[in-house]
Amino acid sequence: MAISCYCSLWTGSRRVITLWIAVRTGGRVAIQGIILDVDGTVILASKVLDGASETLDILRNRGYKLVFCTQQNQDSDRKLSDRLNAAGLQIYEQEIVSAGTVAVDYLAQNHRGSQVYVVGADSIRDRLSLAGLKVLADRNGETAEVVLVATDPDVNLTRLSVAAEAVRRGADFYVTSLDRGEPMADRIIPGPGSLALAIAYTAGRRPVVLGKPSPAMVAAVRDRLQLPSSSIAVVGDQPAQDVRLGRFLGATTVLVMSGVTTPEALERTSSSYRPDVILPGIKDVPAWLDLNKQKQPS
Amino acid sequence: MAISCYCSLWTGSRRVITLWIAVRTGGRVAIQGIILDVDGTVILASKVLDGASETLDILRNRGYKLVFCTQQNQDSDRKLSDRLNAAGLQIYEQEIVSAGTVAVDYLAQNHRGSQVYVVGADSIRDRLSLAGLKVLADRNGETAEVVLVATDPDVNLTRLSVAAEAVRRGADFYVTSLDRGEPMADRIIPGPGSLALAIAYTAGRRPVVLGKPSPAMVAAVRDRLQLPSSSIAVVGDQPAQDVRLGRFLGATTVLVMSGVTTPEALERTSSSYRPDVILPGIKDVPAWLDLNKQKQPS
Repeated sequence: MAISCYCSLWTGSRRVITLWIAVRTGGRVAIQGIILDVDGTVILASKVLDGASETLDILRNRGYKLVFCTQQNQDSDRKLSDRLNAAGLQIYEQEIVSAGTVAVDYLAQNHRGSQVYVVGADSIRDRLSLAGLKVLADRNGETAEVVLVATDPDVNLTRLSVAAEAVRRGADFYVTSLDRGEPMADRIIPGPGSLALAIAYTAGRRPVVLGKPSPAMVAAVRDRLQLPSSSIAVVGDQPAQDVRLGRFLGATTVLVMSGVTTPEALERTSSSYRPDVILPGIKDVPAWLDLNKQKQPS
Repeated sequence: MAISCYCSLWTGSRRVITLWIAVRTGGRVAIQGIILDVDGTVILASKVLDGASETLDILRNRGYKLVFCTQQNQDSDRKLSDRLNAAGLQIYEQEIVSAGTVAVDYLAQNHRGSQVYVVGADSIRDRLSLAGLKVLADRNGETAEVVLVATDPDVNLTRLSVAAEAVRRGADFYVTSLDRGEPMADRIIPGPGSLALAIAYTAGRRPVVLGKPSPAMVAAVRDRLQLPSSSIAVVGDQPAQDVRLGRFLGATTVLVMSGVTTPEALERTSSSYRPDVILPGIKDVPAWLDLNKQKQPS
C-alpha cells in the first residue's frame, strides 16, 4: 500500500513550494532501525539543529536502533563522538559509521601490509599505520600500491603529483567520499571528491569511492544494524549520498531540507535519487514514523 | 579533390599499425602559414625532437609563415623563446602564441581594472598586474571579480579554497588550458585543467578555457597569421587541443605521433578530433607539404 500527501515549504525568499510526500508501506514491516546523516541532518556548521537533541531521545526511548552515518574522515569515531557531545548532542561512539573508519577497515582487510600513499590528514595516516598498512612519505609515495584520498588541510602540488604518479603507475585508487567540500565561516574548503578529481584527471583514472553510497558503506551499516532492509529508514540531507545509500540498502529514504539541498535543486534531482519522503527537518521524523506505523498492515 | 594513402607506424612493442592519411585539397589554396604546437611536436621533455631544428629552417626558407602555439603559461613569450633557443631550437618571441599571454591579454581587454584572484605562478600574477588588473592576495581573494587558474607550483588548500569561494560567489572563472599535467623526470605534475576541475567541483561551476582550442586562442593565432583558414595547417600531437584548434580555425589538421598520443589512443579518439593527416614527426612535414602542393589545382 502507498499513501501520499503534499507538504509546503517556504524558501528563503518566502516563495511557497509544494513537495510530494509518498510513503511506501505496502507489504513492509515497521521501521526498527534509523540511519541518520550527521552534517545538515542533526548538526549544521557545528550547531545542533532545531529539535535534534530531543528527537534523538524520543527515538531511543521508543526503541529505534540508531546509526549515525557520516562522510567525516579526519577524526576517529571516538573523537567525533566527543566533538558532537561537546556541541550538545548525545551520540555514542558505537553508533557512528564514518567514511574514515570504513576506509581504514576496508584497506586493512583488502590491502593489509601494502604500501599506501595518503592525501589526507595525519590522523587517518596514523590509523592506517595502526591497521597494518605501510604509510609512505612524499619522497617515495610514487611507488605506492594503494592511494587513498581524504580531507587534507595540508594538500599541495607535491602531494597531488605523487598521488597522480602512483595512480598512473597502477596503484589501487580510493577516495573516502566524493564530497565537494565543507562550507566554513568565510569560505568553502575543497573536500576529498575535489582533490580526487584533480588526481584522477591528471592520472587518467577514476577512484573507487569508499564512503556513502558505496558498497563498503552499505556493508558497514548493514553489519551495524543487523536488520532487514525493509525495517530500515535512512534520513539525510543529500540525495546523491543519503538517498542513494538508502536505495542501495533497499531501505525507506527520508530527505530533510535542513542541510545543503534547496527545493530548487531537489526539483532538478535525477529520479533515481528522489526520496520516498521529504520532511522539513529531523524534528518531524517521530511524527512521520507514527503515521507510517498506523498505515502498517496489522 | 581529396587524396588518401596509408602509412605504417611501429609502436613500442613493434606491433605495426596502419594509419589512414587523407589530404583534403579540393578547392583549397596552397598552405602558406603553419601553426606548430611546441611540447610533443618540436620539443619533448626539454629535448629537441629529431629533425625539428632543420625542419624549421626548411620551412622558413621556403617562405612559410610560422606560429608556435603552446599551452605554456608560466613564462613570458620572451622567456619561452630564450628557453627554446637555449635548448637548441631557434624560435623567435614574435612567433609565439602562448596560453599565458592570451589569458593575460584577454583579461586586460575584458576585465581591465577588475580584482582578480590567481591560482598560478608569480610570473603570471606579475604580468596581470602590468596589464592593469588588481591581483588579490590569498587573504582577500574570496571577493575577486575574476578567478584565473594556471600552472601553480605552490598550490595548496588555501589557494584552492579561496578560488572556489570566489567562484561560488559569482566571480568570472577562467583557466589557461585544460591540460591534465606535465610529465617530469620522476612524476606527472597536475596541470591547470586538474586544478581548475577541483575548484569547479567544489564551487559547482565550470571554467571558461582561454588556451587551445578556445575562441580566444583561435582569434590570437588568426590575428598573428593574417591568412585565410584554407591556407593554414595546424601541426600538433594532441587531438583534443591541436586538432580541435585547427577545426575551429577551419585549417588543415596534422597530427604528429612524436608526443603524448599513442596509436591505440588515436584509434579511440572521437571522430570530431580526427586529423586530416597523420605523420610520424615534424621532420615529415616538408615532404607532406610538397605532396600537398603537387595536388593543388593549377
